[in-house]
Amino acid sequence: MTIDRLKGFRDLYPEDAEPKFASLNVAQEVAKSFGFRQIEIPSLESLDLYRLKSGDELVSQTFSFTDRGGREVTMVPEATPSVVRMLTARKDLSRPVKWFSMPKIWRYEEPQSGRFREHIQFNADIFGPDTPEADAEIIGLAASILDNLGLSSSYSIRVNDRKLMEGILRNMGITDVIAVFSVIDKFRKISADEFSAQLAEAKVSSEASSKIVSLMNITSNGNELKSNVEKIIEPDAELSKIMEKVSQTLDLISVYTSADVHIDFSVVRGLSYYTGIVFEVFDSKGEFRSILGGGRYDNLSGLMSDQNIPSVGFGMGDVVLELLLKREGKWATMSMPASFYVCAASPELRKQALSISMKIRKLGLISSSDISQRGLSAQLKNASSLGYSHAVIVGKKEMESGNFTLRNLEDGNQKSMALNDLHKLLGES
Amino acid sequence: MTIDRLKGFRDLYPEDAEPKFASLNVAQEVAKSFGFRQIEIPSLESLDLYRLKSGDELVSQTFSFTDRGGREVTMVPEATPSVVRMLTARKDLSRPVKWFSMPKIWRYEEPQSGRFREHIQFNADIFGPDTPEADAEIIGLAASILDNLGLSSSYSIRVNDRKLMEGILRNMGITDVIAVFSVIDKFRKISADEFSAQLAEAKVSSEASSKIVSLMNITSNGNELKSNVEKIIEPDAELSKIMEKVSQTLDLISVYTSADVHIDFSVVRGLSYYTGIVFEVFDSKGEFRSILGGGRYDNLSGLMSDQNIPSVGFGMGDVVLELLLKREGKWATMSMPASFYVCAASPELRKQALSISMKIRKLGLISSSDISQRGLSAQLKNASSLGYSHAVIVGKKEMESGNFTLRNLEDGNQKSMALNDLHKLLGES
Repeated sequence: MTIDRLKGFRDLYPEDAEPKFASLNVAQEVAKSFGFRQIEIPSLESLDLYRLKSGDELVSQTFSFTDRGGREVTMVPEATPSVVRMLTARKDLSRPVKWFSMPKIWRYEEPQSGRFREHIQFNADIFGPDTPEADAEIIGLAASILDNLGLSSSYSIRVNDRKLMEGILRNMGITDVIAVFSVIDKFRKISADEFSAQLAEAKVSSEASSKIVSLMNITSNGNELKSNVEKIIEPDAELSKIMEKVSQTLDLISVYTSADVHIDFSVVRGLSYYTGIVFEVFDSKGEFRSILGGGRYDNLSGLMSDQNIPSVGFGMGDVVLELLLKREGKWATMSMPASFYVCAASPELRKQALSISMKIRKLGLISSSDISQRGLSAQLKNASSLGYSHAVIVGKKEMESGNFTLRNLEDGNQKSMALNDLHKLLGES
Repeated sequence: MTIDRLKGFRDLYPEDAEPKFASLNVAQEVAKSFGFRQIEIPSLESLDLYRLKSGDELVSQTFSFTDRGGREVTMVPEATPSVVRMLTARKDLSRPVKWFSMPKIWRYEEPQSGRFREHIQFNADIFGPDTPEADAEIIGLAASILDNLGLSSSYSIRVNDRKLMEGILRNMGITDVIAVFSVIDKFRKISADEFSAQLAEAKVSSEASSKIVSLMNITSNGNELKSNVEKIIEPDAELSKIMEKVSQTLDLISVYTSADVHIDFSVVRGLSYYTGIVFEVFDSKGEFRSILGGGRYDNLSGLMSDQNIPSVGFGMGDVVLELLLKREGKWATMSMPASFYVCAASPELRKQALSISMKIRKLGLISSSDISQRGLSAQLKNASSLGYSHAVIVGKKEMESGNFTLRNLEDGNQKSMALNDLHKLLGES
């Protein structure tokens, strides 16, 4: 009886799992170098935790159910609510609290390119400061991770600010800002005509509508922001202050990365959750969905507790990252590092071969030996088919002299060497 | 509105998460050094996958539900069925296939000491060979992991063999072997009287019953196995052959570890799943549940496919391992490695401080800088309360000379040094 894996789920074999965890490990190491600390969230939470933040829209896309104890629960569809729940449960933490985690998350959606029903998400957040420095650091961390993965010229960062956007729209005389945000959110997915039609439906005047289209087509760096906006509207003092803060954030991001960073007014990231800066990172060729996205969400902690804790963070899924790393030729190769298969020249030396394997491991190297009672030539063949880089051949003479025959399985070259010299090979290979 | 985490689930804060992942990372690195390759299983599977192996008993302890597409699914209660499903789906793999994975698994049980409803499990399996060498290697891997965690004198390995046990019981005239196994499985949990009573209930004669009790109380190493068994029964040729194989396995385990390894006839590990060697590892003081357990299960692949692939493996949960590491003083400390908090002596130097932090990260070190617009003395206080080992103070003079004041935050000592010399501190600290 054959039972298949579920639709939208993945089996990761070594050739997929190893480069994936290697790339996610880079993300974790970079976060640690920034002083971020690792946490782990539960995979199952009360469904109410998500109702609180997202209403029933997200809930309809969850793997949720009633457990054997009658609780309404869900496999977590995102990390942030759990992370904020953990944060608000502890009042003893020095700030800024800088945390990262790498949970699996689940969404009941139609699987399509770049989306599965289960994926791994790298998450990072800064809790405490509401400053351009904090905004720049979270974006700087995201950029540094991509830079350390060898992608420094393969992505661009699009930044916007919800408060800035709201101020600009109000300045245009728009009152139902949320309705307009939800149209802007579709700008890159629908035609220009459709965009205008939907703005009109949201009761935006034709004058304001054409201003919004102009805004959408601006690509500003931090310095040009103010002058670009002034071509479209006349900002008041408060709006000018917000623009200054955004410009300062973009300037500070240059401390972390030399990647392309620009203002993109079409980035609003959904509806009501974000309260300040928002950002998305895309591959430079525009082939894929966003690689990562995030922003400031200062109100969530207040929904869950009696504390209001300024919060900024991002999430990066493993799927689009894999597509980009593959396209850029950075997906770690399947081949193992230098590895040593110890062959016994005759059956009575099998135990010695196992013992030599163990010694090689203690040198910090990868090694194994035959465990299938094969003859010597079958062992050598097995070593090659398993992808070992070297074979160490153990015969009676070798056991006496302590010098072993080392065969490079790629080019067939052989030499004789002492066990303790094996680690020198690492420099060579 | 406060929403609590679910009963039986854990929030892992940095002081818990960091040592946990550090210890699990040791397990992964040791497995890699043995030539095991990493895979990743889905977290959700068809419920039928578990019905196949375990029947409805396990199913009643799962987080299972009907998904939005009408499928009967479950959060995985163990790794093995998924791993074997993945194995049988690929006929191109060279053998032995040696895989490890580190999934989260879920069981709906009453939480108690050493058990939660969600835990992380390190899993390793060898597929292909049915040899003493393969059996010894999987037990050797388990032992090497514990040895590399600094636990070499804190555990003992108890080994038995299902075929051996079955042969011995049949030799005693017992026909319903499975019923007797399920009594033996309780030997260490019930009184001697209760044990005898339950054997009688399973229709074991009083003669056979007293032989079984004698067996339970034997502690054999591999060499003594045959003579110890011969004190109780007269083994036939087939039984002698099995004993020889088990003795050979125990002898080979000594290649991997110097830990205590002995035969324990009370280890039968549940009912019908295992087909050969079975083993459990306990802490030497006997305070906790088993640290890990496993064995040979040659029939599972045949239930799922048209292939019969000899299989041996083990699973180690994170919970008992944590208890043991803590008791033995090996739980990695909460303290971070050498880490550098870069302080700006005045506000206009903030950006430079951020930039110096970035340079320190590029040296491979942990660094951060104030992102809350604090004054110098507040920055120094923050550095201490966040647990940084050193503060780097950036003033105008320092920017000009390139030499920075480095303060050790534990002893308060200061010195002046160039940035590039910071990494030398690692050797000192």
